[in-house]
Amino acid sequence: MQDDVIEKLIEQFRTLPGVGYKTAQRYAFSIIEGKEERAKRFADAIVEAKQKIGFCKICGNFTDKEICPICQSRNRKIICVVKEPKDVLAMEKVKNYNGVYHVLFGTISPLEHRGPNDIRIKELLKRIQDDNVEEVIMATNPDVEGDATAMYIAKILKPLGVKVTRIAQGISMGSDLEYADEVTLAKALEARRDMNA
Amino acid sequence: MQDDVIEKLIEQFRTLPGVGYKTAQRYAFSIIEGKEERAKRFADAIVEAKQKIGFCKICGNFTDKEICPICQSRNRKIICVVKEPKDVLAMEKVKNYNGVYHVLFGTISPLEHRGPNDIRIKELLKRIQDDNVEEVIMATNPDVEGDATAMYIAKILKPLGVKVTRIAQGISMGSDLEYADEVTLAKALEARRDMNA
Repeated sequence: MQDDVIEKLIEQFRTLPGVGYKTAQRYAFSIIEGKEERAKRFADAIVEAKQKIGFCKICGNFTDKEICPICQSRNRKIICVVKEPKDVLAMEKVKNYNGVYHVLFGTISPLEHRGPNDIRIKELLKRIQDDNVEEVIMATNPDVEGDATAMYIAKILKPLGVKVTRIAQGISMGSDLEYADEVTLAKALEARRDMNA
Repeated sequence: MQDDVIEKLIEQFRTLPGVGYKTAQRYAFSIIEGKEERAKRFADAIVEAKQKIGFCKICGNFTDKEICPICQSRNRKIICVVKEPKDVLAMEKVKNYNGVYHVLFGTISPLEHRGPNDIRIKELLKRIQDDNVEEVIMATNPDVEGDATAMYIAKILKPLGVKVTRIAQGISMGSDLEYADEVTLAKALEARRDMNA
């Protein structure tokens, strides 16, 4: 027996990724128990973000400007290619990367009828030529579609003479060999390095 | 390097209980990636809930009416006393409880300078007399303050001749004896029941 207004708020919180009923309920109670001012600030931030945030005209990253701060300030000779805008944020955790990004907005997926023309490959080619890019780092996910997309783009870029690299796959730092899956182990073995070199 | 508008939304999500930076970021992205209509619905639900939801005049439970649906429809001869409005919801999971509630809005806590007059004990006494209550179930938390508050109220109610009970403490269903703390085990032992009775 709960009021409709509370249920409606709980329903909204449930639309967030990974939020079940109980968590949504806790969030809703925190709003109801909090100050009215806080509820207004929260609601405004949601509407404002949705209205103002778009995609960078150059790289496709989230931004509230026409061109994102990364494209405005960084070395454009190195482009890191990712699948989605949120991958830019993941990569940004690497402190010493000083290049720019290119968001594909998807990967090539025959199963989901997405071909090379459905993701931002044309735009990548144009950037490579316009900015005299020296290196393209393929940072799509290490799964079947991410690998296939990376390989497809590498093949297309070959005639342009630009260096194309792929982020390394292997055992994660701090993880345990015992629990690594066989594909990861195979990749780690394949990419082994000479320790005395 | 992230835009202020995104950061502001992430900050708001971080004010929710148990939400850290990464989770808040995932929530914020889900808003930005979603439809504008959904963002508006979400924001409206937050403001509406905060504006409309208040406390039931009788029991103190959350409600958007003057008197909550539970007080309107249930047997008022049995009152279950809880600490906070959200505890009402926890108790409501017990399907065959058909009584009403009384929210204390706190427990007696000398450490936090909260005495009997700072929680809704007077209101409870009035209800017991007005409605000819037959049983008061003390369902404050099984901790030091919850126990002390339950005992205090039981002592006060004694002259009124009303039956006062305390929810049982013991081993949780499905849990393991091995991991139970000693206080819980002591309480479980103390409250043991004759299985042949």
